[in-house]
Amino acid sequence: MQKFGKTVLSLVIFAVVAVFSLVLVVGTSAAADYTTGGDATLENFKFVKNIMIWFMLMLVAFLMLFIKKYEWGVALAVLLSAAGSFIVYLAIQDFILDAYVWNQDVMLMGVICAITVVIAIGCFLGTVKMWQYLFVGLLFAPVFCLVELFMAGEIVESIVAFDPGGSILVHMCAAYFGVGVAIGIREKRAFNEPMYTTTHSVSFVWLAAMLLWVLWPSFVTALLPMEEVFWGMMTCYLAGMGSILSAWVVCTLVQKKVNPLIYTYAMLAGPVAIGAPLILVGPWAAIVIGLIAGAFSALSFIFLHPRLCKAIGVLDVMGVHNLHGVGGWIGMIASVCAMAYLGGMGDFITGNIVSAVFVAVVTLALGAVIGVVLRLTRGKMVDEDLFIDDVDFIKTEEPAN
Amino acid sequence: MQKFGKTVLSLVIFAVVAVFSLVLVVGTSAAADYTTGGDATLENFKFVKNIMIWFMLMLVAFLMLFIKKYEWGVALAVLLSAAGSFIVYLAIQDFILDAYVWNQDVMLMGVICAITVVIAIGCFLGTVKMWQYLFVGLLFAPVFCLVELFMAGEIVESIVAFDPGGSILVHMCAAYFGVGVAIGIREKRAFNEPMYTTTHSVSFVWLAAMLLWVLWPSFVTALLPMEEVFWGMMTCYLAGMGSILSAWVVCTLVQKKVNPLIYTYAMLAGPVAIGAPLILVGPWAAIVIGLIAGAFSALSFIFLHPRLCKAIGVLDVMGVHNLHGVGGWIGMIASVCAMAYLGGMGDFITGNIVSAVFVAVVTLALGAVIGVVLRLTRGKMVDEDLFIDDVDFIKTEEPAN
Amino acid sequence: MQKFGKTVLSLVIFAVVAVFSLVLVVGTSAAADYTTGGDATLENFKFVKNIMIWFMLMLVAFLMLFIKKYEWGVALAVLLSAAGSFIVYLAIQDFILDAYVWNQDVMLMGVICAITVVIAIGCFLGTVKMWQYLFVGLLFAPVFCLVELFMAGEIVESIVAFDPGGSILVHMCAAYFGVGVAIGIREKRAFNEPMYTTTHSVSFVWLAAMLLWVLWPSFVTALLPMEEVFWGMMTCYLAGMGSILSAWVVCTLVQKKVNPLIYTYAMLAGPVAIGAPLILVGPWAAIVIGLIAGAFSALSFIFLHPRLCKAIGVLDVMGVHNLHGVGGWIGMIASVCAMAYLGGMGDFITGNIVSAVFVAVVTLALGAVIGVVLRLTRGKMVDEDLFIDDVDFIKTEEPAN
Repeated sequence: MQKFGKTVLSLVIFAVVAVFSLVLVVGTSAAADYTTGGDATLENFKFVKNIMIWFMLMLVAFLMLFIKKYEWGVALAVLLSAAGSFIVYLAIQDFILDAYVWNQDVMLMGVICAITVVIAIGCFLGTVKMWQYLFVGLLFAPVFCLVELFMAGEIVESIVAFDPGGSILVHMCAAYFGVGVAIGIREKRAFNEPMYTTTHSVSFVWLAAMLLWVLWPSFVTALLPMEEVFWGMMTCYLAGMGSILSAWVVCTLVQKKVNPLIYTYAMLAGPVAIGAPLILVGPWAAIVIGLIAGAFSALSFIFLHPRLCKAIGVLDVMGVHNLHGVGGWIGMIASVCAMAYLGGMGDFITGNIVSAVFVAVVTLALGAVIGVVLRLTRGKMVDEDLFIDDVDFIKTEEPAN
Repeated sequence: MQKFGKTVLSLVIFAVVAVFSLVLVVGTSAAADYTTGGDATLENFKFVKNIMIWFMLMLVAFLMLFIKKYEWGVALAVLLSAAGSFIVYLAIQDFILDAYVWNQDVMLMGVICAITVVIAIGCFLGTVKMWQYLFVGLLFAPVFCLVELFMAGEIVESIVAFDPGGSILVHMCAAYFGVGVAIGIREKRAFNEPMYTTTHSVSFVWLAAMLLWVLWPSFVTALLPMEEVFWGMMTCYLAGMGSILSAWVVCTLVQKKVNPLIYTYAMLAGPVAIGAPLILVGPWAAIVIGLIAGAFSALSFIFLHPRLCKAIGVLDVMGVHNLHGVGGWIGMIASVCAMAYLGGMGDFITGNIVSAVFVAVVTLALGAVIGVVLRLTRGKMVDEDLFIDDVDFIKTEEPAN
Repeated sequence: MQKFGKTVLSLVIFAVVAVFSLVLVVGTSAAADYTTGGDATLENFKFVKNIMIWFMLMLVAFLMLFIKKYEWGVALAVLLSAAGSFIVYLAIQDFILDAYVWNQDVMLMGVICAITVVIAIGCFLGTVKMWQYLFVGLLFAPVFCLVELFMAGEIVESIVAFDPGGSILVHMCAAYFGVGVAIGIREKRAFNEPMYTTTHSVSFVWLAAMLLWVLWPSFVTALLPMEEVFWGMMTCYLAGMGSILSAWVVCTLVQKKVNPLIYTYAMLAGPVAIGAPLILVGPWAAIVIGLIAGAFSALSFIFLHPRLCKAIGVLDVMGVHNLHGVGGWIGMIASVCAMAYLGGMGDFITGNIVSAVFVAVVTLALGAVIGVVLRLTRGKMVDEDLFIDDVDFIKTEEPAN
């Protein structure tokens, strides 16, 4: 073992030292070619949002980290899938779509792409090998680029969506891609996972949900011009208020006691749904959208989830569809209602409806294809390999005497 | 049960769909009427602070989340009381005080109102029903508006306070309102709560205290003009340094070992106390204010707390008064000293003294009235209903075999 | 005991009240003398970074808080060492080096000094008395000032380093100072510490590592002019991507399973190493630097760490040298390569090489001297006093029946 390690060590050191000077020189030349351009003040505001969206991406890991025997694996899966998608997204932008891309907007779209796949893996967490989360990240980036181009009117010119906060681009895409992958993997044993928690593992989920709620305005206003940022923050927080309240009412009314693993997700449905109508509605409409989204999301967890999972034959492990799928549809519908009321936005109405359907169908299908690939490449997984940290990690817990 | 759930479901779906189109249209019209106005650069700076103060609000939950059998209830109580007060605060601003309010300052005052009630519920956490935290939030917002108006000279014209960082408006208000409510509830069984912790439940408290300390400059400088923000940050951090040190010295000297549930609170007394003298003092005076505040706060936890609670006949559950009450008084006194030294600020000296007394008396009285209402409406609470998550939450812990 | 406490109380109250009016007046006069000056917009951008670096400082505590029986002590040690070094750093700037210092840059350098010592104490955490962490902080500030002055060409005029992100100034300084102190303390019993963790104690480490990764661009761009901030953020995140991937590959290849206490540290090696070449390289070179740094850091934990600790005769408790020492050297080498490629930066090449050697030698030596002082002053420490919270803290855990 020691010997094998030393051999590997020597090889790795040799390899990296070899590429070091080589690629550094090539890479450095890139630095000389590019400049940032753009308004420095605006770029600096976006700096803060960029950090906060990365913050949210990491918190998504902690939102899903409640199965006591499967915590660290979730964290590592999030890191690997995010890294894979982010790098490929930037590579596509740099080498395929445009040579002159390095500014905050591209970096922001990169992390938004990464957070989308991080949400999506929630549908099938615990059912594939660790390296496959990286693999999914690599494969997801082109799918995301396709959706982004479609919604920007680059594929069908007349179809342009209005979705500043990502109800369709991020949340629906994450939900349907993730469900698609889960369908492709077809891991029926996931239904048997008891998902035992502890008080503290669920407290991490509370922390993640509460801070995600707090940081959400950075996400929905990331690409807005400065003068629209305030409005987006206001409607985002008020929609969040709505789902904090309605998710609690529904959980309490329907199930007598609150299931924290439903509430902590459904309380985020307002911010999910406000993405599309973000700057089309006023504060009191935003709160109503949040009330509706929180209620529907909680109801979906309770009633839709078991039926839907039975229908498609696989478990949406983290219930991603109940928050991001349902919330995304509500956001799309709310934006259409608001645009109909405001008038003169007929093209965007069509754009949003068509985009939502496109995303639901196409990412589901592409996800299913990728899921089949995962199934074919994941090798043998016995029951004991599912939802467990021990497969991937060295543990140093105190031995029970 | 299933059947009942389905009936409720149908009703709820019907109701929300019915109001959906209706209220959305009404709400949207509001969006057409308002615009943000204001300097976009400044609004964007306040965007960041707004998020950070929400962040602090959520962290307050984790500061109080150390009783292992009562963690999730604290988180939910914080969310509900914050939502209730925030919405009512905005409604008062929009419908009663002024029609044209939507900008960062109002949103900031809204979250400051919400964080005040979140601090206040620490006095009686675990002794009322879950829905009553929402109820307290709804009722607190008018109390906060009253205090805000008083300190701005809108009620007695000659009384205007100088309290940029909220020593009086936020901290004293939270402490005395909360103690008032606790007096009104008169739940003597709280004295018997053993408050058992775990290593990790207290580690969450360390996390919350350390990050609250870090984010505090956003809170005290939230409404300052841009050129005074730096000074407020500097004195805030230096006051924080003072209480980090003096709280440790006092805990160690008096009790030999540090009680982490005293230290993590008392280390925040400097930032509490610097609120009023924020931009009146220099860095080395700030550190002295912090030293004094940290020492007095720790001493209050150790000596004043048991005596005070015995005197008023109820337990200040989280010791809110030892941090926010004592820290607030020190802040008021420090600001008066500084203004006396600087000269020419006699009106503000009177304003601060009168405001502090007004806040202590009036919010205590109004809190007591609201506490009585809570007592009358909370229904039966047996011993087993106090300080316990099991009453409100579904648990999915692994069964001990 | 009660009586003794009351006596102490009276004395302390008397003392603080005595100095209160006195020092407040003196301190206030300082406030009248200073003004901030500087561009308010830039100062406000730095406001955000200042907070985020403090955030990182606190997260460093949670990165080291995995030994279940020694969690709170780590948090308190971080607070005390940070407070000590920050205050002394500001005092040196104010009273010795310059009278007119109060702006964001000085505050930023202060927290950067503090985070450096917080990293450094990782080398000997658990082996000294609690008050000695404060003591180390006080003594470290002059060492840091010396390094800072040296690298700015204030000591040897011709030696000026180019290290915007602190690879040398912060990371190498922390590693070699810390190792030096550990050598001075010579606590061989640290080798016997089993470092038992729990699932959740390690989950705190994941949280800390992931958020440190996220906030890192604030650290490396803290003192850059606005127009260079974006570039620094971009290369920082891409270097971080590299180490997320390569640390995982190395851990998996060499040890079959991932040791989370290696991975969570090595995944930060990219951001450590990018500090010096930060704005000299392009995005794809940054990712390569990150790949190399992550791989070397993980390899250092696995192979170098046991050998090095055996060679110097003491344990680098948290493996600080494997992340910050190794990462710092890679950063220095990468910056030299990049400058050689770009051409015309020969003086900085010399500056960086000489500074790295200077830091390694001088801080190691000064650290060793301080370590000897710690050893001589720490009094008796029996085996049971090492790595344990019980020595310093009152515990309120539920008694096992």
